[in-house]
Amino acid sequence: MAKQLTSRSENYSQWYNDLVVKADLAENSAVRGSMVIKPYGYAIWERMQSVLDTMFKDTGHQNAYFPLFIPKSFFSKEASHVEGFAKECAVVTHYRLKTNEQGEIVVDENAKLEEELIVRPTSETIIWDTYRKWIQSYRDLPVLINQWANVVRWEMRTRLFLRTAEFLWQEGHTAHATEAEALEEAEKMVGVYADFAERYMGLPVLQGIKSPNERFAGAIETYCIEALMQDGKALQAGTSHFLGQNFAKAFDVKFVTRENKQEYVWATSWGVSTRLIGALIMAHSDDNGLVLPPKIAPIQVVIIPIFKNDEQLDEITKTVDVIIDELKSKNITVKYDNRDTQKPGYKFAEWELKGVPVRLAIGPRDLENGTVEVARRDTLEKETLQITNIGKKIENLLSQIQDNIYQKALSFREDNTFNVDTWDEFADRIKKGGFVRAHWDGTSETEKLIKDKTKATIRVIPIDEKIVAGKCILTGEPSKQRVVFARAY
Amino acid sequence: MAKQLTSRSENYSQWYNDLVVKADLAENSAVRGSMVIKPYGYAIWERMQSVLDTMFKDTGHQNAYFPLFIPKSFFSKEASHVEGFAKECAVVTHYRLKTNEQGEIVVDENAKLEEELIVRPTSETIIWDTYRKWIQSYRDLPVLINQWANVVRWEMRTRLFLRTAEFLWQEGHTAHATEAEALEEAEKMVGVYADFAERYMGLPVLQGIKSPNERFAGAIETYCIEALMQDGKALQAGTSHFLGQNFAKAFDVKFVTRENKQEYVWATSWGVSTRLIGALIMAHSDDNGLVLPPKIAPIQVVIIPIFKNDEQLDEITKTVDVIIDELKSKNITVKYDNRDTQKPGYKFAEWELKGVPVRLAIGPRDLENGTVEVARRDTLEKETLQITNIGKKIENLLSQIQDNIYQKALSFREDNTFNVDTWDEFADRIKKGGFVRAHWDGTSETEKLIKDKTKATIRVIPIDEKIVAGKCILTGEPSKQRVVFARAY
Repeated sequence: MAKQLTSRSENYSQWYNDLVVKADLAENSAVRGSMVIKPYGYAIWERMQSVLDTMFKDTGHQNAYFPLFIPKSFFSKEASHVEGFAKECAVVTHYRLKTNEQGEIVVDENAKLEEELIVRPTSETIIWDTYRKWIQSYRDLPVLINQWANVVRWEMRTRLFLRTAEFLWQEGHTAHATEAEALEEAEKMVGVYADFAERYMGLPVLQGIKSPNERFAGAIETYCIEALMQDGKALQAGTSHFLGQNFAKAFDVKFVTRENKQEYVWATSWGVSTRLIGALIMAHSDDNGLVLPPKIAPIQVVIIPIFKNDEQLDEITKTVDVIIDELKSKNITVKYDNRDTQKPGYKFAEWELKGVPVRLAIGPRDLENGTVEVARRDTLEKETLQITNIGKKIENLLSQIQDNIYQKALSFREDNTFNVDTWDEFADRIKKGGFVRAHWDGTSETEKLIKDKTKATIRVIPIDEKIVAGKCILTGEPSKQRVVFARAY
Repeated sequence: MAKQLTSRSENYSQWYNDLVVKADLAENSAVRGSMVIKPYGYAIWERMQSVLDTMFKDTGHQNAYFPLFIPKSFFSKEASHVEGFAKECAVVTHYRLKTNEQGEIVVDENAKLEEELIVRPTSETIIWDTYRKWIQSYRDLPVLINQWANVVRWEMRTRLFLRTAEFLWQEGHTAHATEAEALEEAEKMVGVYADFAERYMGLPVLQGIKSPNERFAGAIETYCIEALMQDGKALQAGTSHFLGQNFAKAFDVKFVTRENKQEYVWATSWGVSTRLIGALIMAHSDDNGLVLPPKIAPIQVVIIPIFKNDEQLDEITKTVDVIIDELKSKNITVKYDNRDTQKPGYKFAEWELKGVPVRLAIGPRDLENGTVEVARRDTLEKETLQITNIGKKIENLLSQIQDNIYQKALSFREDNTFNVDTWDEFADRIKKGGFVRAHWDGTSETEKLIKDKTKATIRVIPIDEKIVAGKCILTGEPSKQRVVFARAY
């Protein structure tokens, strides 16, 4: 087939790029670092949005929308935030073009903005500037808001879905009366992300906190979920930040407490992005293409008729119509690929490439026997089933596939997680990939040294396990607990 | 109540601004011309999105996402398009800030872009640049794509929802093999908009085409829907453009036909925006606040308990829980406002301001009688109903309200549509507001003269009525048919 991929073992990075383009997920655009998300890739994002949006609403959040542009001065207000975000960004300086004497379109220098506007890299500043007007009293709290939006970070080295100048995401921004409530919110939302990753994306994740070096610029604590990709590199799949009173102080957001005192408001923010699509691809897919967990797949079942002439196709279609009705009544999304311009083999390969979880094929002999050939994408196994009760059978199969994809990724992670206690072993292991659990003395200096020597960073400091002390892998100094190192995307 | 509005008769424009802010729909932001869409306003937009998205998918469209930034040179490629759009726009010139010697954040002059990027005012150019890569053969056609996105047009005089520098919208961009098919698509989509406006927003609209002066920059024909607001001004609520081969030629998008010839592709584009929320407000609302058609209302029913103490509230809540279950089983969205910090009168006014279609109030006497007080927002009428079968009763009432809101707006439009045949009558009528149907000689010059004299423009040239010739209102020259004039938002 024309669309064959580079294999993972040959060149993992090329395999990824091939897959994204050939499965019609996304492509590079004419604008450096900005991608075009194609309909099939966008349909995956819509599935993710739909599930997450429901989860956010079920936990009491509402959506709102804040401006794309942020006045430059806003970034100076929170000292660490500006270091992290205001540097590599798109700056709007003018608001008009004109035609010059040569007939060319040029920037009109008379239309220079008094203060430059930054295209949002994240919205804490503009949102906290707004919250100042919304919050006066404890009665106005909590404020539990989410925004679905595009953001821009001027990345020099970009990669489709994983790192692009513009990307789509959601950003939650909440305001609370107490520190405890804000901490609880930050923890709750990383829990929502973990739940989403595991139950819907079939992606097992480690939950924990980031070391100070890896924290969000402006956060007191960053909670995260980390997943392991098939090449042994880690991928940060979502973060939730406890921001303390940093932004409330920077934007002067105070409230009157029940006890009639003025206090600064406590904050969180949390987000996941189209990067999740990159995670989905790299966690589950194979050399034949995408493997999608049924709960995220835009098309869960594809039906391909095997026919030699129109008469056969008509006969097959009658049976297929019945199957489609039965599948739809179970809320299964189904596509009938009855194109007469392509052969079955081409269609099989195309839908395999696109990761559709279940393929049904029906030919004249199946009609005689009342059967259908069922192929599952995750294992590539085929079986012939009686059409009777096909809805229930496929429903069960989709559930098995969802489970199998998760279990496979979980086994992979378990097989690639290592406790390591000596530096040599650590340096060797890190090179080979996987999550490496090792002791660390808790200092940023040591973390930085380890990164310089091995390219590995602390992906997560586990918080949900029994803590056992030890000695730092590099310095031998005392360590409170093992932390998880890996090379990361 | 604190939140009282200016009345419409006193100052319509102030009434609108008051309502938008006090009903918590939107507010101005720190960025000139950019609004913050608050949760309640955004929930209305989400309802609109949800319905429209389904309608687009039911007509064969898929969503995708294209870059926010457009290279400046792209705008020069379609001559009339650049005149219409590239002038008042946000221009990105740099990609980095730095801290200067005084410790201030300034633009890094070393990070100047070689070619400036324009924040999309509309996406024809970047999309057709992409379609060149997607379309080679007639087999690749049609391409039926929609995008939900933010766009920026640097408006000097802005108004919440009606005209803002940044706004949210959807833009459909389709590519076809034949002129007839593209025309059919453009007409189909204006039909979808009309259907949405009438069936969901309760907004009667005129459908037709625009005069050349009012056409989209780059279109051969612009189809539109026009609605009449309560102050007698028209509002363009949606447009659908037949773009001919203009963008295909500008971006060199050709395809091989079935007959193996190279031809340019035919195009349409179509869009509606958050401006629809402005239309919704101005068409239906009254001096007490927003009036929302049930099919668009984020909350369809609010229930307010009338109680003196916790014991009474507990008793009422037991009955309310049963009512809520019954309403939810009918897919009715319901909010139980059991706050003990506000009195019932305050709550009544608040939900009236926010336009919730139906209010239920229940007190101890209702419990004794098995009744509930039902108030409808559109007519402000109240009645006491038995709780038995309340789900069905409210379902019917919501349907009546939806219908009544539409009929009321339709009557208003009919009462304010005038056939006029002399210039004096025309000039007088236009001042008073409404749709004025008059003859026009078909020239841009006359249209412009009429606009200069009266501020009125041709809102729509009807296409679905019997055409009767006449003489131009201004010049006396022959006219093919009456066209609809009005002053417009």
